[in-house]
Amino acid sequence: MLYLIGLGLSNEKDITIAGLEVVRKASRVYLEAYTSILMIEKDKLEEFYGRSIIIADRELVESSSDTILSGAETDDVAILVVGDPFGATTHTDLLLRARALKIPHRTIHNASIMNAIGACGLQLYNFGQTVSMVFFTDTWRPASFYDRVRENREIGLHTLLLLDIKVKEQSLENLIRGRKVYEKPRYMSVAECAQQMLEIESEKGEGAYSENSLAIGVSRLGSENQQFVSGTLKELSTADLGAPLHSLVLLGKRVHELEIDYIREFAMDKGSFNRAFAVEHGTV
Amino acid sequence: MLYLIGLGLSNEKDITIAGLEVVRKASRVYLEAYTSILMIEKDKLEEFYGRSIIIADRELVESSSDTILSGAETDDVAILVVGDPFGATTHTDLLLRARALKIPHRTIHNASIMNAIGACGLQLYNFGQTVSMVFFTDTWRPASFYDRVRENREIGLHTLLLLDIKVKEQSLENLIRGRKVYEKPRYMSVAECAQQMLEIESEKGEGAYSENSLAIGVSRLGSENQQFVSGTLKELSTADLGAPLHSLVLLGKRVHELEIDYIREFAMDKGSFNRAFAVEHGTV
Repeated sequence: MLYLIGLGLSNEKDITIAGLEVVRKASRVYLEAYTSILMIEKDKLEEFYGRSIIIADRELVESSSDTILSGAETDDVAILVVGDPFGATTHTDLLLRARALKIPHRTIHNASIMNAIGACGLQLYNFGQTVSMVFFTDTWRPASFYDRVRENREIGLHTLLLLDIKVKEQSLENLIRGRKVYEKPRYMSVAECAQQMLEIESEKGEGAYSENSLAIGVSRLGSENQQFVSGTLKELSTADLGAPLHSLVLLGKRVHELEIDYIREFAMDKGSFNRAFAVEHGTV
Repeated sequence: MLYLIGLGLSNEKDITIAGLEVVRKASRVYLEAYTSILMIEKDKLEEFYGRSIIIADRELVESSSDTILSGAETDDVAILVVGDPFGATTHTDLLLRARALKIPHRTIHNASIMNAIGACGLQLYNFGQTVSMVFFTDTWRPASFYDRVRENREIGLHTLLLLDIKVKEQSLENLIRGRKVYEKPRYMSVAECAQQMLEIESEKGEGAYSENSLAIGVSRLGSENQQFVSGTLKELSTADLGAPLHSLVLLGKRVHELEIDYIREFAMDKGSFNRAFAVEHGTV
């Protein structure tokens, strides 16, 4: 049996009882290490699970799925995924391959940013499509997120923006020379996301949002020291929410009074929050 | 400390290690029993947790939040919520009340239908707003879901429809007479949802979708006997997906080839699936 097991958001104790039982009895356990990061290290997981785990980087999962699946007709093989196995990546290709090999599979779900974001106080019902924000470079400043955000805003919906993570990246020079030397990991901050959003709005000028649009910066969601900060995009573009991971929620018009009361509590500046709310939503 | 603890989707082993640790040490543990149902009984939970739990029905949570919060300044009080605590209900009012009483709170997240639905094979990124479908009665046939579905469809997005649950309902007569006699629980099926959708489309005639639109029926998501069935709304309106809980996903245009390959595997009729796909999406 192939098991896809969600690890949840923060540390080794976020796995479910059902998940831990499989981890302890499986023949091989892989940890998928490229689409997201858990906030703890591999050796801490191994100690807690009482067994060894194999790091599965992008190369392994994408090009060696048969290695991962080997023996899974008879033995149990588990792949651990930070968050839920069907969060950012659906693992559809791996499951199609398993199906072709007649290997049964089961998923043990867990929280991911896609549902835990409800902890910011906004109803999940009123979120539109989720959007990814990548690090801009000098030559690559993709603005495709903009249209998605506008589509959500036009029908009054909130937008969850998932922020870029660069782990195990090679510089162009090291890539060309075939040197397996990796850059320091980088995690996009709420401030960087807000800056990039404002840059693209000022370039496009279509008014999908403005520097006075209200948003919520979120960091380390699901951990004991998670943080929420609300404010205008301009305010958030200078906010410091500390260590990664960060995400951002841009507010839509569909908000209830209770929700506003809730998110105002963690406003960077309550006066500015109320003024911005009055402009975009009509009342405070 | 007030703890909101998600129980996940299916049985007693879906709680996280962190959640179980709190349940075992808390002074009081409530089980919120009205916004959703777990697929197992209270006594099985109590046996697994090794402690007693208090059922918190709608009355208790809404009108007696101070009873629940009593003592939580110094002791640990836990509220167990099926799925994730920020799924269907945000518990914003309870948290605002806790804040007013200066009671700290923490959430221990878990999977909910809002993220686990990714297991149907469609990318979560391409879902729009989530919609609720209530049981129609002779005199009440609310069609507000229709506009939301249309908004999603117009921008190519999928729609997750959460289906009505009637638990602890009183008949009008028993309600008037003040008799605490409750009707048998009812859970909407995929077939009933598809029928109601088609009824409203034929009434409105705005073409948000049609009887040939493709959808996925989902039952018992997250359990060992979960089931996915894909087909047109017409086909799904006669589908039998067995025991509750059911949900339905109406497809949008944004689908990748791999996703189609994946969901075609559980089509009620592959020929009909391919024909419907060709009509709405242009190619197979």
